[in-house]
Amino acid sequence: MLESAAMICGPLDDAVAVDLQPEQSPEAYAEALRSAMGDDGRPVLILTDLVGGTPHNVASLICRENRGTTLLALCVSGTNLGLLLEAATSVQSLDADAIAKLVATGRDGIVDAMRQVGESSV
Amino acid sequence: MLESAAMICGPLDDAVAVDLQPEQSPEAYAEALRSAMGDDGRPVLILTDLVGGTPHNVASLICRENRGTTLLALCVSGTNLGLLLEAATSVQSLDADAIAKLVATGRDGIVDAMRQVGESSV
Repeated sequence: MLESAAMICGPLDDAVAVDLQPEQSPEAYAEALRSAMGDDGRPVLILTDLVGGTPHNVASLICRENRGTTLLALCVSGTNLGLLLEAATSVQSLDADAIAKLVATGRDGIVDAMRQVGESSV
Repeated sequence: MLESAAMICGPLDDAVAVDLQPEQSPEAYAEALRSAMGDDGRPVLILTDLVGGTPHNVASLICRENRGTTLLALCVSGTNLGLLLEAATSVQSLDADAIAKLVATGRDGIVDAMRQVGESSV
């Protein structure tokens, strides 16, 4: 997905993909995620694929752990390419409005393409 | 995304990924997509990533071309993993209700994970 986004908006130097490996434990995934997030104090936006999946659960836990600390980390799940592009090109700060707009962009990008052009889907 | 889905629900024998290559023309992509769809008359569901992108536009065109023929082809854009899993495990027929449910599942899967657990996102 990062490669697809880069085809459209150029390299995403600050974005890192942290794949869950088939045999990887949640603890090992959490370690990989923390390592990717770094510790330079910059806000972090974590985009995960599936609510309730291991990456989502681990990311949510890490975000909650970091509430009130210098590390601002937020998690948005159900990521599609439209949401990723919005995050890459339009998000200036991780405030509530920005997150709400991200979620809305992702949802608005999921359409029945046949209905979208004014035709019935059957 | 197919690999991630297979980790959860097993191999998806009937699903094929048709990647758009960086230098590929819309015509060449259409040819690759038609080839992947086959001609055995079975209904085809095409899931694309981005409304307005080349795969979406080409898929929409092919679906419109095939309206009223023996080939039923539908296109849903903005695909995320939740939507793909729903398509892989729950869709029995490509009627309007099934497509509407697919779109709803994809949208419902996009959440502000911090807000989801009852906390403010800031």
